[in-house]
Amino acid sequence: MRLSQKRCVVCDKGAPAIANEEMEELLQELPDWKIERVEGVPVLERTFTLQDFASALVFVQLVGIEAEKENHHPEILLAWGKVRVRWWTHKIRDLHLNDFVMASKTQILWERYLSLEIKRSL
Amino acid sequence: MRLSQKRCVVCDKGAPAIANEEMEELLQELPDWKIERVEGVPVLERTFTLQDFASALVFVQLVGIEAEKENHHPEILLAWGKVRVRWWTHKIRDLHLNDFVMASKTQILWERYLSLEIKRSL
Repeated sequence: MRLSQKRCVVCDKGAPAIANEEMEELLQELPDWKIERVEGVPVLERTFTLQDFASALVFVQLVGIEAEKENHHPEILLAWGKVRVRWWTHKIRDLHLNDFVMASKTQILWERYLSLEIKRSL
Repeated sequence: MRLSQKRCVVCDKGAPAIANEEMEELLQELPDWKIERVEGVPVLERTFTLQDFASALVFVQLVGIEAEKENHHPEILLAWGKVRVRWWTHKIRDLHLNDFVMASKTQILWERYLSLEIKRSL
């Protein structure tokens, strides 16, 4: 099953962080994403570039609605023409498989968003 | 005229930053806002606390739509139960009267949002 087709699982404080080996493998499916450390916690991050503020606001909605569906929520930074999405698992202060699943779903939303933009400009 | 009733003016690179004295006065109308320095640039900032992610997403939309109306755009950080809004004027890398106008409009949106929440819980 592709990463983007997986669903988030319920994750409590004892849930295992992703193992390094598995992480390397999953990152190959997410070439535009990188791991950053924020206040000691690893986060899976990508910044998307959009043509203006309104477009960025639309994309934030798409990601936000998906997050609600999966009950796993990112931190999103929205600015003119820019959306930075960060996934991590608060309960374990680490990365969980859920974060990679959500990053992958975010990618799918991005591709959908881009195809909408192309249609709009035709 | 109240600050929140003002409109943003077109602002180019030569526009004047707000004077210190005027800033002090305007901040009295915005008691929950503070000035932070971000990469050397002063920004007018407030963090709003909400009950969950979906509520925060709604509030981001409200602020985003107002920003589009006035053609002056903030940086917004959205996380579970939290929305941080920062206003500053990119073209002058400083604070302009527009930023105080927008902070004040953000306050009005926040009050509207809160009254909707109260109605929903009745």
